[in-house]
Amino acid sequence: MPDVEGFWAVVPAGGAGTRLWPLSRAGHPKFLLDLTGSGRTLLQATVDRLGPLTGDRVVVVTGAAHADAVRGQLPGLAADRVLAEPSPRDSMAAIGLGAAVVERTDPDAVVGSFAADHVIPDAAAFHAAVREAVDVARDGHLVTLGVEPTHPATGFGYIRAGERLAGFPTALHAVEFVEKPDAERAAAYVASGEYRWNAGMFVVRAATLLDLLGRWHPDLAAGLREVAADPSRLDDVWPHLTKIAIDHAVAEPAAAAGHVVVVPAPFGWDDVGDFASLAALLPDTDGLTVLGSDDDVTAVDASGLVVASGGRRVAVVGLDDVVVVDTPDAVLVTTRARAQDVKRVVDALKETGRSDLT
Amino acid sequence: MPDVEGFWAVVPAGGAGTRLWPLSRAGHPKFLLDLTGSGRTLLQATVDRLGPLTGDRVVVVTGAAHADAVRGQLPGLAADRVLAEPSPRDSMAAIGLGAAVVERTDPDAVVGSFAADHVIPDAAAFHAAVREAVDVARDGHLVTLGVEPTHPATGFGYIRAGERLAGFPTALHAVEFVEKPDAERAAAYVASGEYRWNAGMFVVRAATLLDLLGRWHPDLAAGLREVAADPSRLDDVWPHLTKIAIDHAVAEPAAAAGHVVVVPAPFGWDDVGDFASLAALLPDTDGLTVLGSDDDVTAVDASGLVVASGGRRVAVVGLDDVVVVDTPDAVLVTTRARAQDVKRVVDALKETGRSDLT
Repeated sequence: MPDVEGFWAVVPAGGAGTRLWPLSRAGHPKFLLDLTGSGRTLLQATVDRLGPLTGDRVVVVTGAAHADAVRGQLPGLAADRVLAEPSPRDSMAAIGLGAAVVERTDPDAVVGSFAADHVIPDAAAFHAAVREAVDVARDGHLVTLGVEPTHPATGFGYIRAGERLAGFPTALHAVEFVEKPDAERAAAYVASGEYRWNAGMFVVRAATLLDLLGRWHPDLAAGLREVAADPSRLDDVWPHLTKIAIDHAVAEPAAAAGHVVVVPAPFGWDDVGDFASLAALLPDTDGLTVLGSDDDVTAVDASGLVVASGGRRVAVVGLDDVVVVDTPDAVLVTTRARAQDVKRVVDALKETGRSDLT
Repeated sequence: MPDVEGFWAVVPAGGAGTRLWPLSRAGHPKFLLDLTGSGRTLLQATVDRLGPLTGDRVVVVTGAAHADAVRGQLPGLAADRVLAEPSPRDSMAAIGLGAAVVERTDPDAVVGSFAADHVIPDAAAFHAAVREAVDVARDGHLVTLGVEPTHPATGFGYIRAGERLAGFPTALHAVEFVEKPDAERAAAYVASGEYRWNAGMFVVRAATLLDLLGRWHPDLAAGLREVAADPSRLDDVWPHLTKIAIDHAVAEPAAAAGHVVVVPAPFGWDDVGDFASLAALLPDTDGLTVLGSDDDVTAVDASGLVVASGGRRVAVVGLDDVVVVDTPDAVLVTTRARAQDVKRVVDALKETGRSDLT
């Protein structure tokens, strides 16, 4: 099947991944890591997955500190397709900059935003959903891919879908975006069948996205278009751009105004937020999952996850659902149940003047 | 107080300490390590503790592979006071060789055997008990120090004591040595008040020890005296010596024959057999005990023992009674309750051809 003419991917590559410390650090964040043992980093796997849809029409937006590393991992991408943010200004500025740059090249382009650090094992199902989303987007809609929930997660926002959209195989009108719910509401959302996870995958004409943004945040839309027209303006304009998430800036008000469509995403998706979700992605052997070299691990009556990336022997005796992450300069020991609290280690290191380890 | 004239210490420095892996290795076993954070290794602390009793009358018996390391740790000891065993031939050959060498120097000497890898925090109480034991030993008895049990341990042998020995402050006749009991028998032993732990601390005239040995193992006694008389015979004689523990070779039959006296040892004693007993020896802070650099450990809701000797950050989140031992080439994660099973890691490493790590 040919790629999708006029379709561009905008890949925001950011986020600290502090719950994946000590694998993920400020200096080599989650998206630069091979967390699945596939031989490809999350960033590379994201671009690989997009290739059949976009060809080389990919723009990556990342922090200035990581631009060289991103270019190094994506040698097939022209260097000017990696846009370096002078400072973090949240997802609207990042994705909007990508969209504005694409709009200058191709005013009719459709862009899709796909985070560099998510995992989608079933590429074929992903491609089918995105192709439908692009078709819908050409009609002027802001389209979001709504991931079928596998459990009542409290760590994601949800999208409530309504009636079917005429003329497309699976698309639905979006009624509203809702914030991360508590456990009770999450269970009710999942039970209702009307809600899907908001995975931040938006597909929309670049011009439509910036025009919608212009309704609610005119200065931000104008600033992004200004930088796209004259890249030398980046350092002057960037610090004054509104710091806001794309959900709040555009998706929520556009949904309220009836402009958003959901294309169901009937495939596994994971943001690999912590070691518990990482463990769930990997095959396990007798209850123990190993990322890295199996040969480096000795387990006696143990289950859980061992990440062996320190080049040393890791031995675990008599612990269930343990998480051991070995790296050259730090080792973490926790449990699947406490995986969310790993960020407290990063906080503690910063408080004690050891930001060099974070 | 002056030292005890004619009293010599024989310090067997052996044992693999496999339950203390990865701290303890074949190449640098337990006795060569500072396990208490005191700045002195167990061997050094043992010799320090004996000094007020023996002056420089100390003989260390160790494996040939460790003789240089032992001499390096004990620069105050003459090099020929460190006897190197060509191969391990159990405790009777080791202690007997020391006694035979001492007997050549001083035929009336009393020797005491004190393992190089035990911990006795109260040196004054130790000294008082040994002084009494030496007095008793001069009368021709084989004296053992019987440690007051603090709990019904199943990992030690016991000594049953009987009537008081006339003429000494605390000494008792020994009725019998018993092997490591099961939990039920251990509890009965402790409840009876008649039993004490056999810590392998024997005090006896060197000549008496070898004469007693000669009754039951004449070839062994003769072989040891032959080597003491002509050290050049060591390599020829050693491989033919009977491999037997001192308890079985001498202590048990001598007790049955009425020749053994127990001097109560009213002091804390620990053989630091595993990480659970090591943890119990160290001061704890908020439930977490750290051996090594406190600064290298970040704990969040954690208790147990962390040994930070790898020069790296060790972070523990949400685990109670955990044991984490970090070294430059291996990290162990277990629990206090499973501390005994650490030897299974060493077994597994040997089975998989990684004896280099053991």
